[in-house]
Amino acid sequence: MKALILLGCPETPSQTPMAVYAFSELTKLGYDVTIAANPAASKLVKISDPEGYYKLNLVDLERTLGEVSEGDYDLLVGFVHKDAAAAFFVTFDQILNTKSLALVFERDLDLVGEFVSMIEESGSKAKICAVRAFHNPSPIKINFDKALKEL
Amino acid sequence: MKALILLGCPETPSQTPMAVYAFSELTKLGYDVTIAANPAASKLVKISDPEGYYKLNLVDLERTLGEVSEGDYDLLVGFVHKDAAAAFFVTFDQILNTKSLALVFERDLDLVGEFVSMIEESGSKAKICAVRAFHNPSPIKINFDKALKEL
Repeated sequence: MKALILLGCPETPSQTPMAVYAFSELTKLGYDVTIAANPAASKLVKISDPEGYYKLNLVDLERTLGEVSEGDYDLLVGFVHKDAAAAFFVTFDQILNTKSLALVFERDLDLVGEFVSMIEESGSKAKICAVRAFHNPSPIKINFDKALKEL
Repeated sequence: MKALILLGCPETPSQTPMAVYAFSELTKLGYDVTIAANPAASKLVKISDPEGYYKLNLVDLERTLGEVSEGDYDLLVGFVHKDAAAAFFVTFDQILNTKSLALVFERDLDLVGEFVSMIEESGSKAKICAVRAFHNPSPIKINFDKALKEL
């Protein structure tokens, strides 16, 4: 089983810790996990595991988008806290056409709604977990943990 | 040898990865390292090492401030990216009266200057590494690495 985690822009302080957490949890569930991120978001993830204990498998987001095909992954998990991240999620979701989970979070509740609409209007069948959150990772973590149980 | 790392508010995405990095590097240098942080900043650090590989030693910032005395630590390292963080750093620095290092970073260069002034005007002898940075941790990491060599 293969899982792909999509990271958005690095502005939000919860994303990097949650990326390591999601990688670790999915690995324990038996997934071979890949994290796709832009260079800045990647750098943050690398620095947060300086000794490489988690064996985080990081790849470039745009490059992966150019190479990926249906059937390459069994699960897509996206961190969606920007327009661009929502657009990337929708695009990967359409290409992969597999089980998918969008973790939508933003400080501003209106933006949370906007990102959810973007995903829904794309015709995606993704499970969407949406919360108002920024520097407190707990609501995102709780949603993620629940969603994992329902996979 | 004992080192205390002070974390500021959790808003900045570079802080959590750099906290794990600093903990890891100081541990390798032989320090017994403690990270003092407020509850939100602590939560982010905990989630970023879900398997506990780094054995991060986290304590409550305010409680530590109430208990700490001169001689308790041989090195103080502070992440300074807010007024409050600068004030905490200056206060711990005065109490501990030991070798200290302030990692000042902010997106806004004027604020970087303001935080440096706050530390200097307190009469602190801290080594101050100041850079304009927010979601790119590299400038902070490079400064930290350099400062470690000069300890």
